[in-house]
Amino acid sequence: MSKTANVRPKRAVRRPDANDGRAAAPIDLGVLPNLVGYMLRRAQLAVFQDFWRVYEAYDIRPAQYAVLIVIDRNPGLRQSQVSAALNIKRANLVALLDSLEQRGLAKRVPVATDRRSYALHLTEDGAALLKKLGELSAAHEQRVSATIGESGRKELLRLLHGVVQAVGSSAPDDDES
Amino acid sequence: MSKTANVRPKRAVRRPDANDGRAAAPIDLGVLPNLVGYMLRRAQLAVFQDFWRVYEAYDIRPAQYAVLIVIDRNPGLRQSQVSAALNIKRANLVALLDSLEQRGLAKRVPVATDRRSYALHLTEDGAALLKKLGELSAAHEQRVSATIGESGRKELLRLLHGVVQAVGSSAPDDDES
Repeated sequence: MSKTANVRPKRAVRRPDANDGRAAAPIDLGVLPNLVGYMLRRAQLAVFQDFWRVYEAYDIRPAQYAVLIVIDRNPGLRQSQVSAALNIKRANLVALLDSLEQRGLAKRVPVATDRRSYALHLTEDGAALLKKLGELSAAHEQRVSATIGESGRKELLRLLHGVVQAVGSSAPDDDES
Repeated sequence: MSKTANVRPKRAVRRPDANDGRAAAPIDLGVLPNLVGYMLRRAQLAVFQDFWRVYEAYDIRPAQYAVLIVIDRNPGLRQSQVSAALNIKRANLVALLDSLEQRGLAKRVPVATDRRSYALHLTEDGAALLKKLGELSAAHEQRVSATIGESGRKELLRLLHGVVQAVGSSAPDDDES
């Protein structure tokens, strides 16, 4: 707009990724937007980012939220069961539980009948935090269904369950990248 | 069945995650199956695992496949543009392109007008491999829609695009975990 802007040399306003004007042109994604895997990944990243916007203040990631929910619903559950139920690699789950334990949200209780495993429980703080997180999730889900609507959200869930059923859930030790 | 199995001491046949019989009982996932974010993640992991089953022989991961497609459709594209278009963190993309280049599938061509950036192109081998990968993708997509059907697959894609539109696509430098 301003005169000074107009007299600025081209190179100064040129974006680093500019290449003979193509930078401004939309990038052709080819078949990708029609591939379920690609769109699942894009949607998952977008939703997880929105999740983070909502739960950032509580320093809770989606995987931590899921683990808190499962421990709350199944007190005394074993690590191996959480790993299988949530499809989280054993090593990642150990680190995740370490952090929840260090933060005083969950605790590992030795099992008298099985020296090798621990029963997982939420602490009072963990249960209180989970209650708070649950209250926040409505806002997140509403934002997710902002464009597709509540009926679209229900249909999406139905189709996602169908996909998981169709191709099966990946094993905890499978690489996802 | 066999007598020997019956006389085996309980502890021997006990599963490591067994806890007073609950191991066999289904685990209560609470609200998780009704959360779009959780189901998106489960479906994405399942589909990516199936993708890997199909493309394992070619040692091609979903992100590599997406990058090959975008470079093929937009020869001369800059790294920063691929990073933005596919929502891949810059550092991850550099490593991914290094591997594609080392495998002789893609090449970085210095840009005369901009010393800082390179134009990306597929090699002949890269183009040939991409053609082969494209032929395989139908089988993968068919398995994905095995339960939801082709109309379900189209509806799923429509809803996923709606979700990405609603909550936006996460920036390349956002953490997704």
